[in-house]
Amino acid sequence: MLAAICYGKKDLRIEEVVDKPLAPNEVRVQVAYGGICGSDMHYFHRGAVGDFAIREPLTLGHEISGWVSEVGSEAGHLRPGMKAALDPSRPCLVCERCRSGENHLCMNMFFLGSAGRFPHVQGGFSQSLVLRADQIVPVPDDTDLLSLSVAEPLSVGLHAVNRAGNLFGKRVIVTGSGPIGLLTVMSAVKAGAAEVVATDIEDAALAVAREKMGAARTVNVRTDADGLTPFEANGGYFDVGFEASGSAAALNSLFRIIRRGGVVVQVGMLPPGEVAIPVNVLQSREINLLGSFRANKEFRQAVDLIVSRAVDVSPILSGTYALQDAVSAFERAGDRSKVVKLHLAISEQTP
Amino acid sequence: MLAAICYGKKDLRIEEVVDKPLAPNEVRVQVAYGGICGSDMHYFHRGAVGDFAIREPLTLGHEISGWVSEVGSEAGHLRPGMKAALDPSRPCLVCERCRSGENHLCMNMFFLGSAGRFPHVQGGFSQSLVLRADQIVPVPDDTDLLSLSVAEPLSVGLHAVNRAGNLFGKRVIVTGSGPIGLLTVMSAVKAGAAEVVATDIEDAALAVAREKMGAARTVNVRTDADGLTPFEANGGYFDVGFEASGSAAALNSLFRIIRRGGVVVQVGMLPPGEVAIPVNVLQSREINLLGSFRANKEFRQAVDLIVSRAVDVSPILSGTYALQDAVSAFERAGDRSKVVKLHLAISEQTP
Amino acid sequence: MLAAICYGKKDLRIEEVVDKPLAPNEVRVQVAYGGICGSDMHYFHRGAVGDFAIREPLTLGHEISGWVSEVGSEAGHLRPGMKAALDPSRPCLVCERCRSGENHLCMNMFFLGSAGRFPHVQGGFSQSLVLRADQIVPVPDDTDLLSLSVAEPLSVGLHAVNRAGNLFGKRVIVTGSGPIGLLTVMSAVKAGAAEVVATDIEDAALAVAREKMGAARTVNVRTDADGLTPFEANGGYFDVGFEASGSAAALNSLFRIIRRGGVVVQVGMLPPGEVAIPVNVLQSREINLLGSFRANKEFRQAVDLIVSRAVDVSPILSGTYALQDAVSAFERAGDRSKVVKLHLAISEQTP
Amino acid sequence: MLAAICYGKKDLRIEEVVDKPLAPNEVRVQVAYGGICGSDMHYFHRGAVGDFAIREPLTLGHEISGWVSEVGSEAGHLRPGMKAALDPSRPCLVCERCRSGENHLCMNMFFLGSAGRFPHVQGGFSQSLVLRADQIVPVPDDTDLLSLSVAEPLSVGLHAVNRAGNLFGKRVIVTGSGPIGLLTVMSAVKAGAAEVVATDIEDAALAVAREKMGAARTVNVRTDADGLTPFEANGGYFDVGFEASGSAAALNSLFRIIRRGGVVVQVGMLPPGEVAIPVNVLQSREINLLGSFRANKEFRQAVDLIVSRAVDVSPILSGTYALQDAVSAFERAGDRSKVVKLHLAISEQTP
Repeated sequence: MLAAICYGKKDLRIEEVVDKPLAPNEVRVQVAYGGICGSDMHYFHRGAVGDFAIREPLTLGHEISGWVSEVGSEAGHLRPGMKAALDPSRPCLVCERCRSGENHLCMNMFFLGSAGRFPHVQGGFSQSLVLRADQIVPVPDDTDLLSLSVAEPLSVGLHAVNRAGNLFGKRVIVTGSGPIGLLTVMSAVKAGAAEVVATDIEDAALAVAREKMGAARTVNVRTDADGLTPFEANGGYFDVGFEASGSAAALNSLFRIIRRGGVVVQVGMLPPGEVAIPVNVLQSREINLLGSFRANKEFRQAVDLIVSRAVDVSPILSGTYALQDAVSAFERAGDRSKVVKLHLAISEQTP
Repeated sequence: MLAAICYGKKDLRIEEVVDKPLAPNEVRVQVAYGGICGSDMHYFHRGAVGDFAIREPLTLGHEISGWVSEVGSEAGHLRPGMKAALDPSRPCLVCERCRSGENHLCMNMFFLGSAGRFPHVQGGFSQSLVLRADQIVPVPDDTDLLSLSVAEPLSVGLHAVNRAGNLFGKRVIVTGSGPIGLLTVMSAVKAGAAEVVATDIEDAALAVAREKMGAARTVNVRTDADGLTPFEANGGYFDVGFEASGSAAALNSLFRIIRRGGVVVQVGMLPPGEVAIPVNVLQSREINLLGSFRANKEFRQAVDLIVSRAVDVSPILSGTYALQDAVSAFERAGDRSKVVKLHLAISEQTP
Repeated sequence: MLAAICYGKKDLRIEEVVDKPLAPNEVRVQVAYGGICGSDMHYFHRGAVGDFAIREPLTLGHEISGWVSEVGSEAGHLRPGMKAALDPSRPCLVCERCRSGENHLCMNMFFLGSAGRFPHVQGGFSQSLVLRADQIVPVPDDTDLLSLSVAEPLSVGLHAVNRAGNLFGKRVIVTGSGPIGLLTVMSAVKAGAAEVVATDIEDAALAVAREKMGAARTVNVRTDADGLTPFEANGGYFDVGFEASGSAAALNSLFRIIRRGGVVVQVGMLPPGEVAIPVNVLQSREINLLGSFRANKEFRQAVDLIVSRAVDVSPILSGTYALQDAVSAFERAGDRSKVVKLHLAISEQTP
Repeated sequence: MLAAICYGKKDLRIEEVVDKPLAPNEVRVQVAYGGICGSDMHYFHRGAVGDFAIREPLTLGHEISGWVSEVGSEAGHLRPGMKAALDPSRPCLVCERCRSGENHLCMNMFFLGSAGRFPHVQGGFSQSLVLRADQIVPVPDDTDLLSLSVAEPLSVGLHAVNRAGNLFGKRVIVTGSGPIGLLTVMSAVKAGAAEVVATDIEDAALAVAREKMGAARTVNVRTDADGLTPFEANGGYFDVGFEASGSAAALNSLFRIIRRGGVVVQVGMLPPGEVAIPVNVLQSREINLLGSFRANKEFRQAVDLIVSRAVDVSPILSGTYALQDAVSAFERAGDRSKVVKLHLAISEQTP
């Protein structure tokens, strides 16, 4: 079987890898599609994500869908041939965070395609893969596996929304309209927000937010420097802000437009190091600044939304490349004037 | 009647002021004692608190207790001669925040002794004062009015604790052991925290935390620079941190010792401007950074705790000065090697 | 001015009443439309609601909209001629429940058209009415006042939904598809519920639920006695149930189909007396049974939803009668095969 | 090895049982002490608990402590000879409830000594026992294992308290002062309740509540029929009530003395069948009736409290019988005038 393996900065190779044996509570899957995430691009372009540098060859990828191909002896509820969403998170289930229902904060997590521990956890851009049975979410046979691979990034948006508490009737702003920002807009709209405003520095992304994701208004903060000023009136217009750009300036802008007692969720990944923010404003206005990291049960919520067609993730899909052409895909994935997200077609045939 | 009026930096005068008329839902009180707060000291030493500069003569003070002396026609549940705790907050009751139960974030608040609006709201270091009836909390005749004047700063500690959610069984650290830090330690202990650790740069303050407030351990972060290092193990020892020093360094130290998914409450006032914090850590560990501002219903909880003797606030009381000696009191109030909090005896006799 | 006054069982008279004087924080309004609520019908048909019997003539009505006609001296943000939604709740604002943000549970509430206190609080089926300024929610001039009068019952559905916590992604059932049940269905759908099922014993009501309110499925529990049985599998299908019929049988049915740890909200009014429920099931499955009473901030949320046309309440509107024909309206309002809710046109002209 | 095995009503035998083999993630323990729970007594006296009848011989017991005696290959953090608290819950860790942090509501739970599934889960009154590694909580060598066996019932009280939310400053009543009621009183006091009142029909139990557990007041509801009446004033005195007696009358009494918006937690087990309660009161006063079942993370909190001596559970300990005398112990365990809880000494020597 083939996999897209990153050996370091700008060094991505499509190579044969060897299958692993199957434990009783594990399942072998054939991967159909894999979406290229910002973290995959960081590994490709600079050989690291945040502080996590590639120290051994690393198969990338964690936004995947596919078919069950082999079932361990303790996973009898699954059958070869089933279509499935594939959850990249394998938490330990027994640490204090897991027992608190915060599996995504597990102290001993194995997350696909990550150099965050050593040996690295090999990723999902691989034709065959061994997962624990609870990482498999079976879906109906007529499910579109390309759309289904969006379950993981959608789950990140859903998790950010759930971090903010009940959004029903709330006024919401999302700063940054990359894939996570757009899917956060979509999630906030589905969660009953009264109004969702999106920002970005790229008109193409804002058009998607407005025309496809349900944003009521958008602001290009590059071309319209004062575009957020009207929201400063009366102590701040928004109940909740989602910072999805990873930009310190965007985060700071929120403290001027979020009302007293409001919520700011930092879902975008920031570069390592400190960011200067007005903590005195946070204190005296009782703003809640909450981190949001990956997703937890929201993965299944995302699968349900996609399978039931309650959401349409097709505006996120900007093109699909054969696994063999992964390097081209990675080189083009960052062009935000044309691309929201690119995918790899990893296995060409069903099992 | 006399009041302690600040005309600007280092210009505090004890002068006669004129009584105001009483509206039907108002009550006139005679003030017995007033505690000197850090914000009072800021007005005295630099003529401003944060961005709020004195623009007209301002009677200081908001930590007060006393007796009811005259009752408006719609406040029939109160009677002259009653001892009472005096809540310095007069929220509008009808704005969106008030209707949400967040009166302390009221968009149209009148808070005693504050230059935050103009005309300023005159404060409580005044022998006579007019308050709205709901600012009066009657107490039994045998209540010690000096201790009762600590209800307001205690309420700030209680509010910080309530902001953090249920502390029962939690591991807690409080950075900064000034009056608010110490009362936050006391509040966290009463709320059932499994363990409370306190820090400061002054041994005298730490001794109070440890010997009188219930802190299990203390760390002098000036003399023991590595004192917090052991708490970094296993991803952070504490569930909750309260930053009560107003120090950027203290706030930053918390991000190394708070566990994933933990809570940091900023209750100390920071100087205007930005503070650099590791937002990437906050994001990837899902830390919740929450502002805490003044208090709300906790004022009545503080009164109950003091009146029932469930807490002993006497370790906070470092000395009482006659109103005429207010300037001396203000000059000595900042000596943290000897003083936790100083008080003014404002009215010498009961009504 | 005329009002619809109930003198007791089956004794409703349209009579002249005298205007009240205006306090500084009050506003006089002209009432445009009034919706007939179940409680109004109880007063009409048996002279009482629950334990509250009519002890003096009582103007009925609390689902009203209209125009501002006269403004007190302290209500300067309002102007005569403004269209407005009229909140029937006048809480005291200062009791412990009000200060906790639970104004709807105020210990000293004045609620329009209620015999719950004596003297009774006269209601809104009156051409002119005096309200406190914070009961007035101004709306744009092009707002349809008939639809706007649905804000109050919609707020009851929204409040029930908010009582249940975050509904995003949840499976929901609503038992009873009268006006409150239907508006709860609508509210749950807007709040992002994954699926909403509605029940009733009347096909006409279920058709509205399914075709107009967004219910995914409906069950006629009279004609299809086993209709809920499939939902019992796997320990209960639904995360949340709203009991909106006031029927003990409906409440009991929920304990078989709500999952462990799920929520049941009792929003329908039950007759006085006890209801036998399986408390052992509630205990061992940790079900949360929550009362839901009237509404609080949800009144403004309801106004926003109607004014912005985010919801369409027209399926609730089954016909409008002149105030003079109120008795006919009351007699026909209970025919659930034809009627969801009837309205009275109270003032014929704008001010 | 010996075990106390119930063959049906009044048929408890001390017999040899055979050891089970050890899986890699399992641990063999030697049981030191076992507390006799109400459910054990139900199995003994009527051969069933609620609807769960004994269908095959069942080793009773789930309140146990002991020593690790053999360690599976994947449990390397444990060592033979360690003293340990032994958690009777073995949840599946992957069902929807487990992934939500509600392991105690697991859809596929194995709970020691329970006929709730078939084959039954054999219990802890057995000299040797195989548990999953995460059921073992190591404790210091100087821990008193008899007190430690109270960790499980204490965890039930702690869980009830946590179900009620933050108790800090709240007024609390606990109806029923059996072991769970007493430990709920203790938990509520530790959680910072402002005042805890306890009821029972047995003076001996109330004396323990008042003198040992921290109850401020007690009411014998058998001898003082009007003892709760004063708490009905002003709409109900208590914020939170815990029903720990399993009595329908006690549950009903709470609806008269809990304030609007207050909480009632049903922690006591009720007999199968329905209980008539005033649901109309629950609805119109927005009371929250919450089930509380066993415990979850509170098991470790209980261990911490006992090990750190933050609580003293000795007032719960009414006597210890040799395993061979288990029948005598069961016959005397129900005499509430003399006994809170009896224990069995199961293994006489350390490993």
